[in-house]
This record gives sequence, C-alpha cells and structure tokens, in this order.
Amino acid sequence: MDERFNFRPARAADVAAVVSLLHDDELGRHRERPGDPAYDTAFAEIASDPNQLLVVAELDGEIVGTLQLSFIAGLSHVGTKRAQLEAVRVGSEYRGLGIGGRMCEWAISVARERGAGQVQLTSDSGRTAAHRFYERLGFSATHVGMKLSLD
Amino acid sequence: MDERFNFRPARAADVAAVVSLLHDDELGRHRERPGDPAYDTAFAEIASDPNQLLVVAELDGEIVGTLQLSFIAGLSHVGTKRAQLEAVRVGSEYRGLGIGGRMCEWAISVARERGAGQVQLTSDSGRTAAHRFYERLGFSATHVGMKLSLD
Repeated sequence: MDERFNFRPARAADVAAVVSLLHDDELGRHRERPGDPAYDTAFAEIASDPNQLLVVAELDGEIVGTLQLSFIAGLSHVGTKRAQLEAVRVGSEYRGLGIGGRMCEWAISVARERGAGQVQLTSDSGRTAAHRFYERLGFSATHVGMKLSLD
Repeated sequence: MDERFNFRPARAADVAAVVSLLHDDELGRHRERPGDPAYDTAFAEIASDPNQLLVVAELDGEIVGTLQLSFIAGLSHVGTKRAQLEAVRVGSEYRGLGIGGRMCEWAISVARERGAGQVQLTSDSGRTAAHRFYERLGFSATHVGMKLSLD
C-alpha cells in the first residue's frame, strides 16, 4: 500500500477530520465535542510552535490517522531532547492494517532526524492493546503516567 | 520559611547548580555527567522556547530545587493545553522540608495561569515514594509511561 499512503503536517482545513478521529475512540467519544471552536484556537497555537508537529496520515488522499509529536529540550540525561507522542489515532474502519505502526515508525524517524535522544508517551492504563502495540515498536513501560485535571 | 524561599526561572549561570541537583539522585547519579558542555547547549534551547520554563527554588539565596514545566498545545480534550512536569528534584540535604511540594504547587498555579487544563508527568516505576508524593498533590496514576531510547 506504499504509494497509496502519505504522512504530512496537518493544515487548518484538516482540523475537523482530526477531531473526528479523536472522537472515534472508546475514550474520546465521551470527552470530545466535534465542531467546538476551541479546536481551531488550539490548532493555531500548535501550528505557530516550531516544536509541535501535528501529523495526518492519508490513504488514497483521505485522512485516516493522526498523531502529534512534541519536542522538549531538557537538561536531564546530559541534555537529551525528548520527542513526545500524543493523540495517536487511526480511524476505526482502518485499524488492523498496520497504519498506526507505520505512522509511529515515521514519527520515530522524524524524532531521530531532529536530534531527539528519547521518544516518550503515556497511554491510558486501560488501553492494554495499545501498550502491546508500543512494546512491539520498541517502547518499554518503565514509568507511571500521572495526570491532574485543572478544570 | 516563606520569606527565605523563592522560585524563579533558571539563568545560564545556574546550569551547573541544576545539573548538580539532577546528579544528586538515585537514578541521576548513573546517567548525568556534570560539566559536560551539552548541558549549556540544552539550556540555550530551553531558554529560547517560550513554552519551556526551567525553574530553580532558592532557600536563603541558595539553589536547593529545580523542575521544568513544558506547555503543550493540543487538539484532544477539546483543545486542552497540557502543562508537563519534568526533572523535579530537591537536593538530598533539603528533602523532607516540604520544598518539593511547595515547588510543585507553585508550578501547578503557573500552569493554571497560563491556561493549561491538565498537568501531567511521568515518574519511574521504581520511585514509589514519588508516586505517593504526587498523589498527595492531587495527581492520579491513570496512565502507563512508555519510553524508547534512540541512542
């Protein structure tokens, strides 16, 4: 499927399609509100930050997946730059085709090119299939991911 | 101890003191190399990024703690901005005085002021005392933190 497949930075016109992917998810369907203008505001902020890369995966020109890659400079580990994966999603009708793996492998190669020494992510404790997926990509579940909502 | 205590952004001249705090740690002593010029390069990158805030805590004018706060715009959770805590450390001779808690509470208030809807962090699975510390601050251990080294 190589020639049918493409990764590229998301554009403002892709926001609705990306939000649709975030909503098309067992957890996302309860916490996303497609059509809310807050998504466009957030997109503008992502697009203006050179350390944020919001990506869409296209199959035959249709958006079928998304992820965000954030670059975080830091002093620890002898000044290692981290690349962080967030919001990795593949449309429900396109799962099981290897799109998520291809998308993450591409993101890891971008992280390496941009000088990151580590890629990190957190995954909800209930997403056990996702944990196995990331372990197959080489990730180790060495940390606890903790969240505090400010709402 | 209120008047004796101060939080402020780290300056280039503080890099050695911050690295010393990162090294003064059960895991850090094996992975940090105080004096390596890579720390100065990384500091310059942090200081030039308005979404990174490297903080030092001073007690009577001496640096006794550090943390880094990273702001990450994103589409998920209806465009919620995340604030991420990294590299939270208090010097070994100053632990148990409540400095870490005060420093994190301050960071959480900064996150809120800057419009973050969530604060997140990962902590090494072996740091069980740290997990209890963050739970007392209101964090929930809802996620698995996964890492992939690119070295």
